[in-house]
Amino acid sequence: MKIIETVAEFRQEWANLKELESLSLGLVPTMGFLHEGHISLVKKSVSQNDVTAATIFVNPTQFGENEDFEDYPRDMKSDLDFLDCEGVDIVFVPSLEEMYPEGFETSINVGSIATRLEGKYRPGHFSGVATVVCKLLSICRPDRAYFGQKDAQQCAVIMALNRDLCLGSEIVVGETIRSSDGLALSSRNSYLSDSEREKALSLSSGLFAARKLWRSGENASDRLRSVVLNEILSGNSEVPVEIDYVSVADKNTFMEIDRIEEAGNAIILVAAKIGTTRLIDNVALV
Amino acid sequence: MKIIETVAEFRQEWANLKELESLSLGLVPTMGFLHEGHISLVKKSVSQNDVTAATIFVNPTQFGENEDFEDYPRDMKSDLDFLDCEGVDIVFVPSLEEMYPEGFETSINVGSIATRLEGKYRPGHFSGVATVVCKLLSICRPDRAYFGQKDAQQCAVIMALNRDLCLGSEIVVGETIRSSDGLALSSRNSYLSDSEREKALSLSSGLFAARKLWRSGENASDRLRSVVLNEILSGNSEVPVEIDYVSVADKNTFMEIDRIEEAGNAIILVAAKIGTTRLIDNVALV
Repeated sequence: MKIIETVAEFRQEWANLKELESLSLGLVPTMGFLHEGHISLVKKSVSQNDVTAATIFVNPTQFGENEDFEDYPRDMKSDLDFLDCEGVDIVFVPSLEEMYPEGFETSINVGSIATRLEGKYRPGHFSGVATVVCKLLSICRPDRAYFGQKDAQQCAVIMALNRDLCLGSEIVVGETIRSSDGLALSSRNSYLSDSEREKALSLSSGLFAARKLWRSGENASDRLRSVVLNEILSGNSEVPVEIDYVSVADKNTFMEIDRIEEAGNAIILVAAKIGTTRLIDNVALV
Repeated sequence: MKIIETVAEFRQEWANLKELESLSLGLVPTMGFLHEGHISLVKKSVSQNDVTAATIFVNPTQFGENEDFEDYPRDMKSDLDFLDCEGVDIVFVPSLEEMYPEGFETSINVGSIATRLEGKYRPGHFSGVATVVCKLLSICRPDRAYFGQKDAQQCAVIMALNRDLCLGSEIVVGETIRSSDGLALSSRNSYLSDSEREKALSLSSGLFAARKLWRSGENASDRLRSVVLNEILSGNSEVPVEIDYVSVADKNTFMEIDRIEEAGNAIILVAAKIGTTRLIDNVALV
C-alpha cells in the first residue's frame, strides 16, 4: 500500500497506474461572439496541447439582475466556423438545463479577492464565474485552461479557485488583444455607436498615459489615477460616461496600492459605462 | 470538429481520445479512527473497483468553534494497518498545510438542503464538508466515492455537490453498521463512558420503535417523533441528555414531513448530546 501526503504525488501515482499521460487537453472557455482575443487564446492552446476544446456558454449566474444577459451578443454559426478554422477539436455547447438542472443551488465563494473592484460593482458576479468555471474544469479536466488578461481580476479569481479546490489545471493567461486604435477587444464593443466607440478609446489612452507617467518615474497612485480620470472626463463628447473605478492595485490581491514600490507588482484598472455599455480595461505597470 | 452538448458525451469523447478506460478508482474519504463502518465501505470499494484509495484527514473546517476538532480521536498507525489488511492500494494522508495552504479562502455552499437539521445545529458544517469533499474528489478523480448512511444528510449534500459541480464520481452510500446492541458505529463513541454508552442505546432503540410503529400503519410524523423522544427521555439514567432534533424528513430534501404518504421516501433522524458527546443516527422508513 502506497502512503501519499501531497496532491501532486497522488495525481502522479494515479496517472502512472492509469498510464494516461498520452494526450494533453487545452480548454478555452468562452461566452461566444468570438473576437481576436478569444482566437489568440485558441491559437495558444492549439500550439501547447495535443487536443483543444472550447466551450461556448453564456452563463446567466455571472450577470446581475439589471445586466445584459438577455442582450448579450450571440452568433453560434460564426463562432463554430471560427473555432473549426483554428483547429479546435471539440466544442462544448451545453444548454442552460445541462449546466443548471432542476434543483441546482450550489455556489462557490473564493473569498476576499472577489469582494473588490468588479466584485464590489457586480455583486455575485465572481461567485457565478467561479461556479461555472469549476464546473467546466471538472467536466473537461484540461491540462491547461486559457483566459484573457483583459479580465485581470477574473483570472486571479480563477487561479484562486483552481488552487484552492485542487482542480488540477494550469491556468494560462493570454495578453489583452486590442484594435489598432487601442480599444481592448470585447464582445460588448458591439453595443457601441460610433461616437461611443470614439469615447471608449479614452479608457485605453488614459491607461497608456498613466503607464507612461509611471515609466517616467511617478510612483504615487493618486497621480496615476488622476491621469486616467482626466483622460476619460476631458473632451467635448456628448456621450454620457459613468466611471465605476480607476484603481492602482496589487496584481495578485487586487488591494489598492498607495505607492508603487516595485515594478511588476501593480496594475491599473478601469471600469466605466460608456453610454449604456459597461467596459473594463487594465494595463500592468511593467 | 466535434460539437458536444452534454456533460456525459464530453467525458466519453475525451476518455475515448485518451483511452483511459483501463482502470477504475474507488475512493473512501475518512477522518480516520476507523471502525467497521469505514471498513464496510472499503470492502465495497475493493470489490467494485480495480484500485481503491482511502483518505485520512480530520478536516478542521467542518467543525464549529466549540466542537471537538482538537479532541477528535486519532490513531494513524492502527488505521494504516486496517487499510493495508483490507487491500487498499493508496492512502492519501495530507497535512493541514497541503489541504489549506496560505491564502486559502474558498468555500462551497450547496444551498437549502445544507440549512436544515445538522446544518441548523452546526452552522458552517456542511460548507466545510462540501469544500473538502470537492477537493478530495478533484484531487483523486475517482470513478466511485463511498460514504456511510449514518451521515444521511451529509450523503445528500455530497450528492448535490457532485451533481451540481459535475465532479464526475458515482456517490455510493453504504448502510449504517451497528454494534450488536444497536448503537450506530461512530469514531465519537470512543468518548462515551459505560453509563453514557448505555444511555446512547436509546437513540437506536427509539428509531427502531418508531419504524416498527410506522410498519404497523402509523403515518403521522408527530406520533413517530414522540416514540423516539419518549424512548430517549425515559429511564432513570443520571446521564444528561440534550436533544437537538428528532425529525421525520424527506430522504432527498430533508424537509420535515407531516404525514408519510409513500413508503421509501421518509427517514427518521435524531441528534442528541449524551453527556458531552453529540451523536446522530437515522433509519429509513422502508
